[in-house]
Order: sequence, then structure tokens, then C-alpha cells
Amino acid sequence: MQTYDSTARTTPSRYRERARYDRETVHGILDEALICHVGYVRSDRQVVLPTLHVRLGEILYLHGSTGSGPMVTAAGSPDGLPVCVTVTLVDGLVLARSAMHHSLEYRSVVAMGNARLVTDPDEKLRALAAVLDHVAPGRSADSRPPNARELAATALLALDLIEVSAKVRTGGPMDDADDIGLPYWAGVVPLTVTAGTPVPADDLEAGVPVPSYLAPYRRT
Amino acid sequence: MQTYDSTARTTPSRYRERARYDRETVHGILDEALICHVGYVRSDRQVVLPTLHVRLGEILYLHGSTGSGPMVTAAGSPDGLPVCVTVTLVDGLVLARSAMHHSLEYRSVVAMGNARLVTDPDEKLRALAAVLDHVAPGRSADSRPPNARELAATALLALDLIEVSAKVRTGGPMDDADDIGLPYWAGVVPLTVTAGTPVPADDLEAGVPVPSYLAPYRRT
Repeated sequence: MQTYDSTARTTPSRYRERARYDRETVHGILDEALICHVGYVRSDRQVVLPTLHVRLGEILYLHGSTGSGPMVTAAGSPDGLPVCVTVTLVDGLVLARSAMHHSLEYRSVVAMGNARLVTDPDEKLRALAAVLDHVAPGRSADSRPPNARELAATALLALDLIEVSAKVRTGGPMDDADDIGLPYWAGVVPLTVTAGTPVPADDLEAGVPVPSYLAPYRRT
Repeated sequence: MQTYDSTARTTPSRYRERARYDRETVHGILDEALICHVGYVRSDRQVVLPTLHVRLGEILYLHGSTGSGPMVTAAGSPDGLPVCVTVTLVDGLVLARSAMHHSLEYRSVVAMGNARLVTDPDEKLRALAAVLDHVAPGRSADSRPPNARELAATALLALDLIEVSAKVRTGGPMDDADDIGLPYWAGVVPLTVTAGTPVPADDLEAGVPVPSYLAPYRRT
């Protein structure tokens, strides 16, 4: 099993037994999550923003507008923009008898490093198509590709997956032995992201069918 | 309508028309979202971690272990720990005819400021109960309260909601007029978080009913 090297920064302070460094787990979480949260420093202040991402091999691409904060800051960072990208999937509520042992079932990934602005036109086109296919597999071939003006307005950051770790919590509550008999319900409430029926745009021409990748739409 | 003051840091670089500063919108998003992502700087490096939060009036509380990175760093920050807390709800996929105009329906909040470690015992107990009730309304009264040892192992950060803004994108795709006739489906795929049937713990004693706040469980 191929694994990422753990570092001081990717070793959790708490619940180290939940840490995972194998590529299969990390890739699976990054691929399933629709969005990520990217942290970076701008004017000496940290900022956390949600954005779309896609993984291609060992590169994590982050999508944004050319004029957005991370992209402008990256353009002024010749060594790349230091970022922390975090992806979190919440799989359930864990209810214990004790307040203390309440938890969540979750799978998260934290990736750190210096992200570079993508400037190669071929890489940019490929990564933008991949972002679209990350949202809905097959969509890049089923929509109008970006033109030169649109490409100029769109930017991508690329982060090599080197300093990266996952954290996974599964299973039910772990109550103290003394608490087992207390008269409180304990267990897990599973949570999933569910897609509803696709709603056509008001101006959609008659006869355009809902594509197969949307009906049904699933993240897993 | 009561609003937060906008500042340079809470004015989006892009899509400023999506920004919202009214308390009703901000509070609604913070209350509906199960988790947040908190960004802070540790050893000159930004870190973004998912955690549980709760809003009580104009204070946002962040939950963590006493030994966790943010709490240890906050303990060493007499003026409070500079944080950026971001909460994101994804309400749907927006599919346009052009790759460029694809988007998400979302509601997000970004709150910045210096968070203080909660040290007052009454405030700590109150905020911990509120975190539990944020996860499942009524749960704090329906579980064993924390004892002194458990309280010592748990920490909370408190962030005053002062520099805070929301960003909201609703509605269908906004394609260019020239693209309307293209043969691609366009519209919205609604996404919701759905709770499954509660799964009792293996060691749950017979006869403990599923509480009403879990059946059904909803975030809204």
C-alpha cells in the first residue's frame, strides 16, 4: 500500500489512531468531497474560503476566478502560495450517553504545501475540464468549452500532494463502562448528501433530456 | 434589519452582489451548518481544521480538545487567537450550457477576529450544552452532563461576531444569450443532507426509545 510520509504538521494533536496516510483513503475522500476549504494568508491575516477542487494523480487543483483573493495573492508569490486545503465528509452523528463522548462519524483530509498558479494552457484546459467532471462525471464533454476570454478570467492553483493526511472516525459511541446503563439513547444517525430531481433552467429548450450522469446523481 | 458593518476583509473580491451582512442571514447559515472550518496560524503556517460550533447570540463558540492545536495555540495567545471561521452549505449544482457558467448554489459565512479561550466555568458549561443542542436540539438535557475531569479535557474558543459576512448564490444558470440554444441540458440539481434511520449502539439496553429529536433528524 502506497502511503504519504507523515510529518510533524500532518500528525494530529489528538486521536492519532484516526490518522491515515495511505493514498487510497486520501484519494477517496478528495474525490468524493464536492468542495474543499482553502486557507491562506493575505495581508498578514489568515483567510478560509470554500472552493471547488479536483485531484488528478498526485496534484490537487483548486478552482477560482483570476481576480479572487487566493489567485491574486498566488500571482504575487514567486515560490508558490502557502496553503492548507481541508476536505471534510460528515457521515453521521454519534450520540453517546455522556455529553463528553458525543462525536461525529467523519472522513477528512488536510493537505499542506506551496500551491503554484497554473500557467501552461494545456494543463489549465485539462484541469478545468477535470473540475467539471469532478462535479458531474462526463459534463466537460457535454457543455461548451471555455473560450480565450473565459480562460483568462478563470484561474487554478496546483498543489502537489506530498504533505497530506486523512483522519477517519467510524463506528458507534464509546461510552465509559459506568454509563452504559444510563437511560439515554445511544447510537449513530447516518447522514448522506442526497440529490433531488434535476430542475431545468427556465430558458431550457424543449426536448433536451436530463443527462444520465445527473439522474440519479451521487457523490460516491 | 440589523446588519454587520462591512470591512475591507469581509468584502468579497468577486461577486460582491452575493454578499449579505444582515444578521438574519448570517445567523441562519451558522445555525443550520453542522460544522465549520477554522483557520489559524501555528508555527508560522496556516492550518484549517473542521470542528463543531454553536452560535449563542453574537458569540460563535468553537469546540475542541484541550490538547488540540487551536486550543494550545490560543492558550499561548494573551490577546486571543486570530482565526477565520468559515461555514458553507451547498444547496445544489448549477449546470450551464457553457463550462464557464457552471456554479454551485451555496450559502456561506466568513467570520474573522481574535478568539478567546473560554475560562469561566459557567460560560463553559453553557456553551458545551449549546454545542450538543446545536448537533441535536434537546440532547444536552437528555445525556449525562460532563464531570470535572471531562470539562478539563474539553476546550472552547469564543469569537465575537463583529467582522462577519455571508455570501449567497441562489437560482439557475446564467448562460450567455448566444449559448441558450446549445443542445446541452441546463438547470439545477438540488442537494440536501439527509438523515438515515438511527442505528442503536451495540450495547444499548433494551427499551430505550429513539428520541423525538432524532426521528426525523433535520438540520433546517
